[in-house]
Formats: sequence, C-alpha cells, structure tokens
Amino acid sequence: MVPTTTKFEFAAGLSHLEGPDLKLTQSHLTRGPASIECEYDELFAGPEVVAEAIRAQNAGADAIVIVCMGDPALQATREAVSVPVLGIGETAMHYAAMLGHKFSILCTLDRRVGNYETKARHFGLESKLASVRPVNIPVLDIGGDHSSALDRLIDTAKAAITEDGADVIVLGCGCFQDMDRIMEERLRELGLAVPVIDSPPLTVLSAAALARTRLTHSKRAYPTPPAKDRPGYEIPTLKERG
Amino acid sequence: MVPTTTKFEFAAGLSHLEGPDLKLTQSHLTRGPASIECEYDELFAGPEVVAEAIRAQNAGADAIVIVCMGDPALQATREAVSVPVLGIGETAMHYAAMLGHKFSILCTLDRRVGNYETKARHFGLESKLASVRPVNIPVLDIGGDHSSALDRLIDTAKAAITEDGADVIVLGCGCFQDMDRIMEERLRELGLAVPVIDSPPLTVLSAAALARTRLTHSKRAYPTPPAKDRPGYEIPTLKERG
Amino acid sequence: MVPTTTKFEFAAGLSHLEGPDLKLTQSHLTRGPASIECEYDELFAGPEVVAEAIRAQNAGADAIVIVCMGDPALQATREAVSVPVLGIGETAMHYAAMLGHKFSILCTLDRRVGNYETKARHFGLESKLASVRPVNIPVLDIGGDHSSALDRLIDTAKAAITEDGADVIVLGCGCFQDMDRIMEERLRELGLAVPVIDSPPLTVLSAAALARTRLTHSKRAYPTPPAKDRPGYEIPTLKERG
Amino acid sequence: MVPTTTKFEFAAGLSHLEGPDLKLTQSHLTRGPASIECEYDELFAGPEVVAEAIRAQNAGADAIVIVCMGDPALQATREAVSVPVLGIGETAMHYAAMLGHKFSILCTLDRRVGNYETKARHFGLESKLASVRPVNIPVLDIGGDHSSALDRLIDTAKAAITEDGADVIVLGCGCFQDMDRIMEERLRELGLAVPVIDSPPLTVLSAAALARTRLTHSKRAYPTPPAKDRPGYEIPTLKERG
Amino acid sequence: MVPTTTKFEFAAGLSHLEGPDLKLTQSHLTRGPASIECEYDELFAGPEVVAEAIRAQNAGADAIVIVCMGDPALQATREAVSVPVLGIGETAMHYAAMLGHKFSILCTLDRRVGNYETKARHFGLESKLASVRPVNIPVLDIGGDHSSALDRLIDTAKAAITEDGADVIVLGCGCFQDMDRIMEERLRELGLAVPVIDSPPLTVLSAAALARTRLTHSKRAYPTPPAKDRPGYEIPTLKERG
Amino acid sequence: MVPTTTKFEFAAGLSHLEGPDLKLTQSHLTRGPASIECEYDELFAGPEVVAEAIRAQNAGADAIVIVCMGDPALQATREAVSVPVLGIGETAMHYAAMLGHKFSILCTLDRRVGNYETKARHFGLESKLASVRPVNIPVLDIGGDHSSALDRLIDTAKAAITEDGADVIVLGCGCFQDMDRIMEERLRELGLAVPVIDSPPLTVLSAAALARTRLTHSKRAYPTPPAKDRPGYEIPTLKERG
Repeated sequence: MVPTTTKFEFAAGLSHLEGPDLKLTQSHLTRGPASIECEYDELFAGPEVVAEAIRAQNAGADAIVIVCMGDPALQATREAVSVPVLGIGETAMHYAAMLGHKFSILCTLDRRVGNYETKARHFGLESKLASVRPVNIPVLDIGGDHSSALDRLIDTAKAAITEDGADVIVLGCGCFQDMDRIMEERLRELGLAVPVIDSPPLTVLSAAALARTRLTHSKRAYPTPPAKDRPGYEIPTLKERG
Repeated sequence: MVPTTTKFEFAAGLSHLEGPDLKLTQSHLTRGPASIECEYDELFAGPEVVAEAIRAQNAGADAIVIVCMGDPALQATREAVSVPVLGIGETAMHYAAMLGHKFSILCTLDRRVGNYETKARHFGLESKLASVRPVNIPVLDIGGDHSSALDRLIDTAKAAITEDGADVIVLGCGCFQDMDRIMEERLRELGLAVPVIDSPPLTVLSAAALARTRLTHSKRAYPTPPAKDRPGYEIPTLKERG
Repeated sequence: MVPTTTKFEFAAGLSHLEGPDLKLTQSHLTRGPASIECEYDELFAGPEVVAEAIRAQNAGADAIVIVCMGDPALQATREAVSVPVLGIGETAMHYAAMLGHKFSILCTLDRRVGNYETKARHFGLESKLASVRPVNIPVLDIGGDHSSALDRLIDTAKAAITEDGADVIVLGCGCFQDMDRIMEERLRELGLAVPVIDSPPLTVLSAAALARTRLTHSKRAYPTPPAKDRPGYEIPTLKERG
Repeated sequence: MVPTTTKFEFAAGLSHLEGPDLKLTQSHLTRGPASIECEYDELFAGPEVVAEAIRAQNAGADAIVIVCMGDPALQATREAVSVPVLGIGETAMHYAAMLGHKFSILCTLDRRVGNYETKARHFGLESKLASVRPVNIPVLDIGGDHSSALDRLIDTAKAAITEDGADVIVLGCGCFQDMDRIMEERLRELGLAVPVIDSPPLTVLSAAALARTRLTHSKRAYPTPPAKDRPGYEIPTLKERG
Repeated sequence: MVPTTTKFEFAAGLSHLEGPDLKLTQSHLTRGPASIECEYDELFAGPEVVAEAIRAQNAGADAIVIVCMGDPALQATREAVSVPVLGIGETAMHYAAMLGHKFSILCTLDRRVGNYETKARHFGLESKLASVRPVNIPVLDIGGDHSSALDRLIDTAKAAITEDGADVIVLGCGCFQDMDRIMEERLRELGLAVPVIDSPPLTVLSAAALARTRLTHSKRAYPTPPAKDRPGYEIPTLKERG
Repeated sequence: MVPTTTKFEFAAGLSHLEGPDLKLTQSHLTRGPASIECEYDELFAGPEVVAEAIRAQNAGADAIVIVCMGDPALQATREAVSVPVLGIGETAMHYAAMLGHKFSILCTLDRRVGNYETKARHFGLESKLASVRPVNIPVLDIGGDHSSALDRLIDTAKAAITEDGADVIVLGCGCFQDMDRIMEERLRELGLAVPVIDSPPLTVLSAAALARTRLTHSKRAYPTPPAKDRPGYEIPTLKERG
C-alpha cells in the first residue's frame, strides 16, 4: 500500500519478484496527503492507511507492506489487522544493521532528519545509525528524470561514508526506486564499496517470508483496538479468517 | 485541549490556578475516539487535535496543553502551530526525572505499557524509567467513584516502589485527577514517601512559564508543513500573529 | 540562591515575574569560590550552598533555585531540605529536550565541556544533547558589556546548529542573562530559527509551579542525612514545618 | 551450513521452501565441536566454518546461512566470502524486534545467557531484549522426543512473557525445529498470544531475498583479509565470480 | 587517604602489599563527616579531601587512593593534583567489568543504591551493572565482629546472583575488608562460584601500576583550577615537581 | 602470550617490571596468522591461543596476558583456564576510562575501526569512546624505525583530541611499544597534554595485581567447557591446581 493520494507506481517495478508463491497488489489513499514529508503528513495519512489495510486483509492479502520510509501508522495498523505488516523504513534499517557496522539514510529533505533519527531510536537501532543526510529534493520533484537526483545521492552518500563512518547506505524514499545498483557501481568506482538498500523489494520479500513461515506481529504488543465510538470516521470491520 | 470526543472535564479542577496572568479554556474533539487507549485511538484523534490547536491559536491562545498521557499528535501539532504545545505525558516524565532517580508510570491498561516505554525512549528518558505498571481500569470506567481506583493505584505504586525501584510515581491518565495528594499520604503511611505527579496542573503551569518567558518549540525541529493537497480533510489556516 | 561569593545580581532581572503568588529573594555565599568554573569550585561552594538552603527554608522559602549551570550541591541540598530545589542547569536541559530534538549548551570555558556532558548523562538526557561548545569567556569577564560576548555566542550557536545538529540552544551560564531573545532574533536573520533558553526565569517559574502544586523531590531518592559528627562545619538545623 | 561435526539434519525440514528460485544444500564440519554450547566451542568451529563457506561460494552458492544461534565466525566469514552470509541468531533477533516491543530468547543452557546478551548488544538490539532464559537441556539431548522439551519451553516462555515483559519468543537453538507453531498454540491457550520464531526457515528466506535483490554485506565493514602466512591451516582460495 | 574523621584503619591490613617498590601511608580528615553514607556526607568531606591530597603530593606521594566506595571529591582532587588519583569505587567497578558479564555492588544502606547506580552511569558502566543491593548495616556498626555482617553479605550476594544475574560481586564499603575470600568460599559451597572484590588492595596495586608506568589522569579532562578568591578555606599550594 | 606466529618481542621491553614478586615468560603461536589485522586473523589465532594458555597455566603461570589489542580468544581462554586472563585491549580501555572523560584508540589500519568500536560496546565502554582512528601502517611494517610512525601517531592523536574530543589516547597496537612517553611530550609541546597509554606494561601489572589479591575471572560468566568430541584439534588438558 502506498500511503499517499498521489498514485506513485511501485508494483510495476516489483513485478519481477512475482511467482507461484507471490502475487502483488497495490493501493493508494483517497484521503490524506499528496506526499509524506513531515509528521503532519504522516498523521493525515494515518486513518486511511488503517482503513486500507483492513480492506486489504478482507480482500485476502497475506501480508501488507506500507511503502513509505516514514512508516506512517505502522503500529496502529498492526493493532488493526492480523496479517503481518511491514514498513519499508523499519525493514530497511534492520537489514542495514545486518549488512555492516553503521548505516546512513539519505532522506529527501532536511526536515526529515530528526524524524528518522527518532525512528531509529524507536526501533532500537540508534547505535547502528551513522547519520541521516538530506539530498534536498522534494518527493514530488523526483519524477522521471533521475540523473540529477543521482548526482546528489552519490555526493551525499560519499559524505556519509567518509565523514560519518557509514558502511551501508539506505535510500530514504521509496521514490529512489531502481537507483540502488547504479549507486553501488558509482560508489565502487570512487573506492567506496558499500551496499545501497532500496527497501521496497526487500520488504516485499520479507513480508512474503513472514507469510510463508506463518509468522505475524505480536498481538500482545499490538492488541486489537477495543470497540468504542469513534465519530467522524467510517472504519471497515475486519473479517475473521477461517 | 482534551483529545477525545467524550467531554472529560479538567478545566474546572484547574480553575484555582487561574489569575491575572493565566486564563484557561478547554475544548474537546468532534471527530475521533471516545477515549484513548491504544495507538489506533491516538491515530484517529490526530487530525482533529491538529485542527483544534490551529483554532485555539487563532482564537488567541498563548500556549496549548494536550490533556492525554499518550500525547497524541504532539509532534504534528508543534509543526502546525507556533505557540508552545506541551503534552501531559512528556511534561510529567521530565518533572519526574528531576524529582528522583527513577519513576514509574501507573497506566490504565496492560496494553499501554509498551506505548509508554516507547515514549520514554522517544523523550530520551529511558534510563530514568523504573517501570510502567497497569492498574487495569478502562478510562471510561474511572468516573465519579475514585475509591476502588485508589486502592488499585496504591497497590500498584507500592509494587513499583519496592519491586522496580521507583522513587517517583506518575499518574498515567489525566482522569486520575486529584488523587495525587491522597496517594502520597497513603504511601507515606506505608513508609513509602514518594512524590505522586498528577500532570495536568503542572503542565498548565509549565506551558504558562514558556509563554511568560516567550519561549516556544523549535521550528527547526518542527518545521511548518509545506502547502500541498490533503484531500478529505478541512484544516483551518493558521493566522499570522502581529 | 547564587552559589558564589561574588554578588552576581539576578533577582532584579527577574522581578517582572513577581506577583501575588510569587515573591523572590536572593542570597550569595560568604565562604566558597568567587565564580564556578570547575569541579573544584563546585566542591568548595558545596557546604555553604547546603547551609544557605537550610537557612532559606527556615526563613520561609517555598522553593529554592540554585542559580549556576553547574548545579553545585544539588543532590546534597535535596537531602538537606524538604522544599523543592531546582538547579538552572538540570531544568534548562529538560525544557530543551521538550522544545526540540537535540540541544547544545554554550558554556563559558573549554574546561566545562566534559562537566556538562557528564551532567547530561547524569540527568539521563545524553541522547538529546547535540554538543557542548565553549565561547571561551571567563565568568568574571562577562560583566556589563555584552556586545562582544554576543558575537561569540552567535558564532558558537551557529556552529552548534549547522555542524552538530542542534535545534535548541541553552545558554550555559547564568551570566548570559537577557541575551536569549536578541540571540533568537539574530539567529533567525541567519535562517537558523531556534529557541534560546536563558534558564533562570524558566527555573524560577518551574520551582513556583512545584510549590503551587505541592510537589517536592522524593525523600526516597534524597533521604535526610543521618545525624552524626561532622567536625569543622556549623550547619544550621532544619526547622520542621507545621 | 551447520557449524558442528554432528550431522544435525535441517535441510529436510526446510525442503518445502524450495522452488524454482530457491535450492538448498547443507554441509557440516569435519573439524570442530560436536555441538556449540560455549565461546570455546564457537572458537573451535571457526576455522572450518570459514573454509566451508569459501567452498560453498566456490561451488556456486548465492547466499550462505550459518545454522547456529551463536552465529559462530559470522564476521570472519563475511570477510572471507562475497555472497551474503546470515546467521540464524542475528536474523531472528532483528525479526523479533520488528514483530513486537521486546523479545526473549529461550536458550539451551544457563551458560549461554551471557553470550546471547552480549550478542544482542553487538547487534545494537539490547533495548529490545527482554531476557535470555535457559531451558536447561543440552543440545545433544534434544533429539527425537520433543515432548518433554516442549513442556520446558512453554514454562520458560510463560515466565519470559509474564515476568520479563517479552511479547515475542525466539527459539534459541536450531534444534528446536518445528516447535514454533505448537508453542504458539499452547501459549494462546494460556492467554499469551505471542509469535514464536524458529529462525532457520526465516533466515533461509531472508538470505534468498538478499540474493534475489543482489544485496550483500558491506566490504567496507567486512574487508577481504590480506594475504599473509597463516601456518597450520589449509584455507581454500576464493574464486572470483565472473 | 580515608575521607572520614573516624580513623578507620586500612593500611595495616594492606601492609603485606608493601615491598621495595611500594610504600603506603594513610591519612584521615580533621574536618568532615565521621562516615560517608549520603551525598551530603560526600559534600562535607570534599574540601578536606582535596587539601589532604595536595599535602600528600607535596610530601612526596607518587599516587593517591581515596578509600571510600563513594569516591568523594574524586574529580576535583584530580583537578587539584598531578599524581594519579584513584577511588576504590571506580576502580572496583572497572575490574568487575573485566572479570565477568555483570556485577552487583553490596552497599551498606538502602540510601546508597541510587548513588552507586548514578556513579556506574557516570563511569560509563551501567550496562555491566546487574544491581546495587543494600545489606542494611551502617558503616560505624561494622566494627570488629564480622560474623553477622558476613551472613547478610552472603544472603545479599546470593540474591544478586540468582535474581539479578550478577556473576561478580563488589563489596560496597571499604569496611568489609578481608571478607572477600571467605565470601567466595561460602558462595562456592552454595554452587555460586563468583569473584568477590574487596577494592582497597586492588586499587592500591593499580595506583602503583600507574605510578610505575608514569601514567596519570588527563589534565585536559581535569585541568588545574584557576587561581581565584575562595574565602573561608585555606587550601595548601601544590608544589611543582622537579 | 603473543597471539601471532611472528615472534614479536615484548618481554625484553617489560623486563624492568620484574622483581621478587613478578616473573615474566613469553610465548608465540606455532599455528595461526603472522599478524592480527582482521576478524579472520583473530579467528585463526583462536585455537592455538587457548591451547597455549592451558600450557602456560600447566607450567605454573599465575596470570596470563594476551598481547594483542584485538584480544583474540579472550572469552574462550577464560573458559579454558582458571588463572586470570587479561587482554591488552580491554585493560587499556578500562584504564583510559578512568584517566579522562573520553579516549581515542589509534589503530593500525582503517579496517580495524569497526572492530574496536564493537569491542568498546562489548566492554560496556561505548560512552567513553571518542573515536577510533587509523594511522594506516600495517603491523609488520612497524619494525625498528619508529620515527615515521611517530609523526603519523602524533598527527592522528591531534585530530582525535581536537576534532573528536578525546582527552586520553590509547595506542592501538602492541607494536607501538615505548612510544607513549615521547608522544606525551610531543603532544604537550602542541598544547595538548593528555596521557598516552601503551597497554602491555599496564596490563602485566594489572594481571599481577589480580594474582596478588587472588582474584580471577568469574567461572559463572566463563564456565569450563563441557567435555565433548572436537575432532581435528589436540587440546592439552588443564591440570588441577593443588
């Protein structure tokens, strides 16, 4: 699920992962922000992310991926549904922690730095975080032409590696899709051989791994919300699975 | 502001704090949860908390207090307005850290434990948190008769002090109003002399202190949200202050 | 209370905070250091800070503020008296933690850096501390002409914000009184809009808030010292309050 | 790869994961400990784990899994080969961190407790670790009859959940294979609904995910060992991949 | 140096450590507390500890040991003198960290628990501290008859090991002299083989090791106090060493 | 014991520490790496370090020092023998923590940085570590001419002090023997008076201090390995001490 009203297209780029054991569907929000660039955007995305996740599980989804590095509504969505829910931000950080000593996140805007630092603490990974560095490109400007974004990403990655001690790079926006391998190559030419993580495909495969091994999040950690009045919102009812 | 659609009454109990330098107003939500007991409730409270805060600043408020220990929408509200915004959860934890070595939070339900532990980490105070212990009373049941709640609070506080090493107790729900002094007295009779913090009056006075000294939150930490489409929500516009 | 033998004048600058609910008195030490610039100075200030606090409570004070960013004798003073005792260093750091993601302290001398870093750890706030940076001006030189101090403060704040990631600035000496708002203005002109905290007025109002809500430090954390011989010191006896 | 000279059989139990995109092979050590129960065993497993990993990559493996919760030689193996290497201990802990607030590891023997606590710190996950609790069954005794082991596992999990605050359980030995779902069921009957992680299948799928997305560990974090004399060991040479 | 006015005798019990390379002298305070049991006692011991350390260095001491687990005035003394200064508390904790995974301190009184926890944080060792447990015996009562103290120490050590996970025990008062080996023996008989650290002899040998290798504390961390008025105290002048 | 097959000579340089109470012997490996520069080298040194330690205790050693900053096989060796075992890396870091606020380690190669950072975390000392900085000289090149190494060490120390805030310097390789005092002198001339720790002599004296006070590592933390098959290795049997 893409937690924006803008219809960013991820599923096409991930279709090569599909096979007999893995089918992908994609949805967007009808209410909420056009893009997610601050806590405020995450908050307005929240109610519809939850509702959409309930609809997805009711439609038969075995696992849900929230395709935004800010992982909006991740905890509340886990309360709302029973199938596994992964965010691309949390998943990327955990893999980054396994692939090296310290990772840096290249985020879109300066204003996201504090947000991702806080999230790394939330996930318990602050000791593995070298830095969060902005490339200063708004999400909606990334669009089709990736070449200028690429140069900025390379420069920022270089600073993260040589100045902050990062040995793994995390692309801090789902919109930097498909720039991971070319960045690795360019960085290797600069003598900076590090993995560059584009989280969506990795998160999709991890969600599939959870579904495959019949694991889901803890209902003790994320208990089902109690029934009560919540006027102003029409939230679909989760159907019990047989 | 009380971030629920239930019209819990706090302002009356705080009116003794008013004076020439301090006037209080109180508002509730028209859309959102009847009470806040999980991440899911916090999420559905969010959009209206932000909107209500903008309305409050536009109406002349010099500072805003969110009266819920979960501090719903605290960060996004700080992005949305320019007057200082305090949550009673964050404020209580900081005072608790100053009044002793370790504090425990007595929360309503078991399901809130992880939430408050996460928040203590978020505020950087995990090393001062002895424990979060539930008294297992739903918010909407606290109501008028406080005597049975009091016994449970005392028993839970006693366990927090003797088993977890707490030397300060934080009441983990705004609804435990006015039970702080009687708890201190009862605990002192048990040989357990510790301060018991009921956060709303302390937070109101701290917000007033910020307004008085003309301090507010950092706009570098909480920058104003960029203008963009956010269909499905009617968010009031913040008026510039002269 | 000002924990030096030099008669720094703070009360006059804070008199605008007085009102029907708040009266201020100010005292200095007759024995101890002329200014506090190292652990050694804090240590020699200690015995008289404690004695003076006992005298203040005996004279009817409802709360005590130690006006030195090093918070000398803070813990021992809390053991010695029963009314709330706040230090301007600890209080400033907790408010700074609430107003942004990370704060920097601008201290007088290079030799204070380690001291404040250690104190931030003591208060549990090390994850919120971006840096401690010296302006390299001895306390006793700050005196009447603030303009050269202001330039150094601005330069140091700028470095803290742009190089260390601070989004809140704490003035690290009580003697930088009244420089907070002008610093905010100058920094805003540089595109660096952050709050600047001058701790004394904020700490006075917070101590008043504790007195007003009848809260004080935990006697379980700071128990009254046992009676015993302590030759060489004449320590006044604390009078019980009715 | 199973880092013991005992020929524990894992691959058969994982064959249901195989498909067009995933083929599994399994190997054991010819030199080293019969089972891994202490730092000393990990150390004697080390040289052969490294050699075996080089042989596996030379034979065409796209990813390598070390099937022992102690992750013996994990870092050195990453230095030695270029395909991704995952240990079941590290991988289990990262997934556990994502599925709840706090996890507990049920290890075989009391003597492993300190080892796993140290490893959680090494991975940066100490804030997510509720506890490590031994079930006190030596690895070589687990064998065919799982029923008595099951009772001990349930009792230990129950203590971890109710006393230590765990909301996710990690099986701390690869030999507890296939006991995850039955444990979840039994715990649910006790009112303790938490996920139970049996790491081998999850780690195999995650290693496959890394291979699939062409990610591997950072050679900046795990650089290839320099050529030098290492008398007493015959280490195979890694063949370059085309 | 023993930082109390009571003339506790340590040197006699340490005389077996003397030899051609090590001579011991012992001094006490003429002003200050009869024993050290709280922050308040540490504070009143401070000025004379510093003065006595200066006198010791002037008299030719090559290293100074402060014989009190609270390490009173340790930092300020390091500022005041140039020969190495060790406290028995800090030294014991660092050795304890090397001898096992987690250590517990057995302190005299309940009121010392928070103090030692804070000190462990100060030294950066909080992750190695299992617990601080009081035996509830005032220092001045320990005196000649050690047998009842021994029973309490054993019981408390047992709880620290089995309940808190300690695998090293630190005797939390210099007055528990000579009880280390008998405790180890008694604990071994209970199946709890752990080292028990009596810090004074170990600290004396470590201070001698520093002097022997011509190492001392960093004057960048502990700079010499600036000359200034400090009325009310007569502090001896440190003589420069040739 | 020197954990390499190259016969680095340390004992001669330490012979001035010998006396009636201290005799030194030195041994090297017959199997393993020529020098230790990565995790891989540590791993191949491991089996022989353990075997050699058993031989040393059997030959009457009262304490064992592993002379390599990487402390290879330190934990497993403690499991294998009963006399105290110290590594020069761990010991140096603990003394460095006592001598200042923050220390930096000057290591040989860039590839060791992550390793020492991880070890500082393992020892619980990460909050005292300012940085690890490489001088970029391979161990086997250090040899007889120290002058060019000295210049690089001074430059690197200077950067650690002025940029990273270190106030203590740790020489990160045993091969920088005897360069500590000359570095201190050169740094003092630059206005950077900090202690420089060459760990081998300090560790030898600390191991002697443990032996002298009859302390050794905790067998609860480092239990004796269980008897079992470990084919491919001939490990000597530890003789019981009378």
